[in-house]
Amino acid sequence: MENKQNIAVIGGGSWATAIVKMLTENVDQIGWYMRNTQSIEHIKENNHNPKYLSSADVDAKFLDLSDDINYIVKNYSILIFAVPSAFLTSELNKLTASLDGKTIFSAIKGIVPETGLIIGEHFNEEFNIPLENIGVITGPCHAEEVAMERLSYLTIACIDEDKAKFMAKAIESWYIKVKISDDIIGTEYAAMLKNIYAVAAGIAHGLGYGDNFQSVLMSNAIREMKRFIKKVHKMKRNINNSAYLGDLLVTGYSVFSRNRMFGNMIGKGYTVISAQHEMSMIAEGYYATKSAYKIKQENKAKTPIIDTVYSILYENKNPKKEFKKLTDKLD
Amino acid sequence: MENKQNIAVIGGGSWATAIVKMLTENVDQIGWYMRNTQSIEHIKENNHNPKYLSSADVDAKFLDLSDDINYIVKNYSILIFAVPSAFLTSELNKLTASLDGKTIFSAIKGIVPETGLIIGEHFNEEFNIPLENIGVITGPCHAEEVAMERLSYLTIACIDEDKAKFMAKAIESWYIKVKISDDIIGTEYAAMLKNIYAVAAGIAHGLGYGDNFQSVLMSNAIREMKRFIKKVHKMKRNINNSAYLGDLLVTGYSVFSRNRMFGNMIGKGYTVISAQHEMSMIAEGYYATKSAYKIKQENKAKTPIIDTVYSILYENKNPKKEFKKLTDKLD
Repeated sequence: MENKQNIAVIGGGSWATAIVKMLTENVDQIGWYMRNTQSIEHIKENNHNPKYLSSADVDAKFLDLSDDINYIVKNYSILIFAVPSAFLTSELNKLTASLDGKTIFSAIKGIVPETGLIIGEHFNEEFNIPLENIGVITGPCHAEEVAMERLSYLTIACIDEDKAKFMAKAIESWYIKVKISDDIIGTEYAAMLKNIYAVAAGIAHGLGYGDNFQSVLMSNAIREMKRFIKKVHKMKRNINNSAYLGDLLVTGYSVFSRNRMFGNMIGKGYTVISAQHEMSMIAEGYYATKSAYKIKQENKAKTPIIDTVYSILYENKNPKKEFKKLTDKLD
Repeated sequence: MENKQNIAVIGGGSWATAIVKMLTENVDQIGWYMRNTQSIEHIKENNHNPKYLSSADVDAKFLDLSDDINYIVKNYSILIFAVPSAFLTSELNKLTASLDGKTIFSAIKGIVPETGLIIGEHFNEEFNIPLENIGVITGPCHAEEVAMERLSYLTIACIDEDKAKFMAKAIESWYIKVKISDDIIGTEYAAMLKNIYAVAAGIAHGLGYGDNFQSVLMSNAIREMKRFIKKVHKMKRNINNSAYLGDLLVTGYSVFSRNRMFGNMIGKGYTVISAQHEMSMIAEGYYATKSAYKIKQENKAKTPIIDTVYSILYENKNPKKEFKKLTDKLD
């Protein structure tokens, strides 16, 4: 199998920075691409990313930093993509270097807006990366707690067990425990769906629903997620494992989640446009909702929560009325 | 079936008060026993319980209040017990009136310390109440949110579906939705086990574990709960329904939960005695832990979280070391 020198991270945000930090515990040379040249210089001198997750130590002596994605793709065979899903296409458009023979790990918890595909499917269908060369890094994990070295559990999914184990070895440490899985489709859909449920949790909170309702919403969300994923990719999985339920809970119950915050503003009466403007970003759950709604129509899964969020975000329906209707469908 | 006039509530605490409030939405005369005569007089004059859940309106014109448990038991055929489990035996010892032919609903989320039985089993084994005359009122529900009339979902479990439906009709309202179930054993064990997991969540928090770990702990707790209940009473149930997972979440994620608070103090280094003294009460999870540990030994269920809490609370083991060991058993 490849040696550890071959791993690179694509992306300069919080989660990319957290993954680089985890890798520095085990790997002597990590390729790291980010667009921002000033940030690269800052990291080289100060051993931390100035713009994202700045509290995390990332020891520059282990880093091969570059603002040239083609340099990184040419020189590393295992590429961990950790850019926001909205920027993936523009980054991939820069590629002149080939992705043939590369192993692609997705650490993007979302959907490619242009194709409506989860990341693994996107690389498989658009770049002909075989499924056994595609992996997922997921799990209930706020990047901020990685920076603080608080114990966290990640799941590495890959059909090729050797590749999953290799990545697990590169990432695990005294504060990171890793579980491996062969469910690349299910774990990635779970990571994307949970953002929709976090939006729903935020809307409910914004509308004035309390903790009792929140727990019922999450209990219904995990059952809905199970039905949805089963329709997309049927296999034996325990939906209550950390990669599915844990990930749902850490996001749905987090007051720091951008998806929950976005939903909260919608619940309080902001329009989608004004909420996005106020947050100066678009929550992953916004794109995920559109895509999930389309998939569920094709698969005929019963998804009252996704339907409700869709009707509010994309059909301009009244949040209060739609949630009132939703409450009759939950139990 | 009995008429609605036949329902009485036993207990004067927050949850008892919340149940009485729910009943006043539908029932014209509710029997209500509590020990405290002054509280009874206060309720009659002011329409709220002075000591517990005082923000809840309970309209005295619908109430038949008494400090004599035998008066209530004699005159009502459906008895909802909502006293803390630690006081159940002393209340039952006062009985001269017979429980023969009565329907007993348990709204006690705990275990009878003297017998180690859940409430339904206790009435069945110690008072020969047939199982079809035993019901459970459970669900993810902080009494405080009932007082505020925030939407909440309860589950009424009874083997006799007519009795479950009757109680559902008596309790549901614009802010209370009710689901019925025939799993009296499973729902009551879930309500008791979740207190142990809330203690565990509190210990973890007290020790400095973060939100990432918390979500992994809850994800493992629901799987452990499923294994435990399956050993005790095997039947088809969806552990992700509100009565099981929802109840776990509303308690495990609540900063107001007394069980979580108790665990938090233990995690911060208090002894069991000093934590109990500081809280001037004993958390239900304390008793539940002892009982659950005994049951799991008999049934050989794999319960690493219960085992860890037991070792800390009853074997005086070091919380930090025991949780360190536990982290290797979770995934």
